[in-house]
Amino acid sequence: MSIATRSSAEAMPAFSATDHALMARALRLAERGAYTTQPNPMVGCVIAQGDEVVGEGWHQKKGGPHAEVFALQAAGERAKDATAYVTLEPCSHTGSTPPCADALIKAGISRVVAAMRDPNPQVDGSGFAKLQAAGIAVESGLMEKQAREQNRGFLSRVERGRPWLRVKLASSVDGRSAMASGDSKWISGEASRHDVQHWRARSGAILTGAGTVLTDDPHLTVRLGDDTAFVPPLRVVLDPGLATVARGHVREGDAPTLYLHAPDAKPARDMHAEHVAVPVEGGRFDLAAVLRLLGERGVNEAQVEAGATLAGAFLAAGLVDELLLYVAPVMLGERARPLFEGLHIDAMTERLRMRIVESRRIGDDVRVLLRPEPAA
Amino acid sequence: MSIATRSSAEAMPAFSATDHALMARALRLAERGAYTTQPNPMVGCVIAQGDEVVGEGWHQKKGGPHAEVFALQAAGERAKDATAYVTLEPCSHTGSTPPCADALIKAGISRVVAAMRDPNPQVDGSGFAKLQAAGIAVESGLMEKQAREQNRGFLSRVERGRPWLRVKLASSVDGRSAMASGDSKWISGEASRHDVQHWRARSGAILTGAGTVLTDDPHLTVRLGDDTAFVPPLRVVLDPGLATVARGHVREGDAPTLYLHAPDAKPARDMHAEHVAVPVEGGRFDLAAVLRLLGERGVNEAQVEAGATLAGAFLAAGLVDELLLYVAPVMLGERARPLFEGLHIDAMTERLRMRIVESRRIGDDVRVLLRPEPAA
Repeated sequence: MSIATRSSAEAMPAFSATDHALMARALRLAERGAYTTQPNPMVGCVIAQGDEVVGEGWHQKKGGPHAEVFALQAAGERAKDATAYVTLEPCSHTGSTPPCADALIKAGISRVVAAMRDPNPQVDGSGFAKLQAAGIAVESGLMEKQAREQNRGFLSRVERGRPWLRVKLASSVDGRSAMASGDSKWISGEASRHDVQHWRARSGAILTGAGTVLTDDPHLTVRLGDDTAFVPPLRVVLDPGLATVARGHVREGDAPTLYLHAPDAKPARDMHAEHVAVPVEGGRFDLAAVLRLLGERGVNEAQVEAGATLAGAFLAAGLVDELLLYVAPVMLGERARPLFEGLHIDAMTERLRMRIVESRRIGDDVRVLLRPEPAA
Repeated sequence: MSIATRSSAEAMPAFSATDHALMARALRLAERGAYTTQPNPMVGCVIAQGDEVVGEGWHQKKGGPHAEVFALQAAGERAKDATAYVTLEPCSHTGSTPPCADALIKAGISRVVAAMRDPNPQVDGSGFAKLQAAGIAVESGLMEKQAREQNRGFLSRVERGRPWLRVKLASSVDGRSAMASGDSKWISGEASRHDVQHWRARSGAILTGAGTVLTDDPHLTVRLGDDTAFVPPLRVVLDPGLATVARGHVREGDAPTLYLHAPDAKPARDMHAEHVAVPVEGGRFDLAAVLRLLGERGVNEAQVEAGATLAGAFLAAGLVDELLLYVAPVMLGERARPLFEGLHIDAMTERLRMRIVESRRIGDDVRVLLRPEPAA
């Protein structure tokens, strides 16, 4: 099988400006599913005759039609000899819905341009192969970087067996996460607290620790303030001794709640909450095991909303994929709690390097999105 | 005397769009003097017939012609019956140069629009009065906020008797200014270190502490990397016991250096550096006295480039007017030094509130400019 993959620099015939514009459109369509497709990936599809769009669609939710199906429906007869732009390789297997590759073939599509191959073992090139076998020209790799960025959660789960891990923190200008007493309400402003809701909505799980449940009693639900649809993320409480199961807003509302505990904890018979034992080493959770467990449950993006201890533990374990930091224009002084606990660095050469992906004003605060630098 | 001051809300006849555009132009012209006018204020002047600019100028350096003189020269005969837009009240006294008010009158200007009155006791309304007495229409208050922002250093010195104090700091994402060892090279990136040069260039003095001289041995000179003109800022070392006078780059180069010491320190006869005793209370410099001294020496903007101790002392004393923070995408861990030492805050209600004036990317870092919130 030979698919024209244009992502390798040496064999890159230029995609046209129209190709780029229509793939960008497909990516924007895909993004509309950000709050609803999990555990599935976001996918967008544009069908065009030359530069004229004749159909478009995006995947909305698991079990619902795929992006290609919506786009083909909209295109109708005009799909014949058209080009289909898809942000992910069309599927070739019958899951909840029939294979998209078959639908594209049946509609008479003559060319398929994909942003990337689907690494899901059930697809992984077989969609492209099926299309090619039917005489369709297949090209892959257009705007692959953007497509990977969009589905970083899904790709992390499929390729690494664990969710993409985002740690959300609110910090003072002097890098403090809470007062010495643990009080952290409210470091960041109202606009930041609303902004966080959008990041929760795209997450498959929100993780917190027993300490945060006791101190802050958060709901950890998504409150967008409008009727935008979303899949309620699983609330995961890391509570070694199951000390907090009897209490808290974290058990209320429509979202599911999962307690992770040490193997020797004794769940009460009447706790009426899902709970799973996770390996503990030296009194601390095996955080890699926690993430594997969430990956097995179909969580693409997991968001940590906890205190300096859990945030620091994930960071020290090298498991943080991105840090979502809301810096508020206040100073809490040197007695306040650090941003990360357990992060012991003794020399400048050992400093943990990240890169700033984006920074922007959110109300009175600055939001900074950071990702670790790949080790040199 | 009755000057049409349009800065009060109740009596605000609308300045025209042309007025705004030409005053904005005058403000931009004034800004060209940012690195060279000290101890004088920046001033820009635009002379216009209707919306046609017939002359413009800006104050370049102390002892040189004022903005109005350059603009009148450029306008020549066309200054007759024209409007002069000035970012600061024209002077009425003979200093290094003859009074600008007289020059405007002599040239036949019919209307003067000023952004603000000059609070300098030698002017303070007398320039306006002189113009009015000559039959010129005088209006003040157009874009006064911007004009005050531009000359915040000059205004601070004239109105408060001390320079505008800027504290420059480089911080890790987790709010640390240095390793426990004191090592702080290099937290921020090259682009940030270059950016700092522009802030130094507009400063009349750069303050540091003996600890920074010993640890970092900075030059504290302006290195813009091109031939832009600037007045070398006075380098001020706060060194209670004069322990560092024998060493350091801070004594090299063309910029002057001033050591401030405790009254009981014994300057060596051969130290060959200017030194002044400043009151000390409880082992610490009276920082308000330090700033008064700099104000008396004509320093408009002073920039602190020191460690967490001196930065924290200025902040705790309530003397910081703005904080210039370069946040680098690194983590230094909880053992590293805080951003400010001596900032003891015990409850969230005591937190020090600031506001973010601006935040922007500088290379790999984020630069955040903050100012204290006025007490509620």
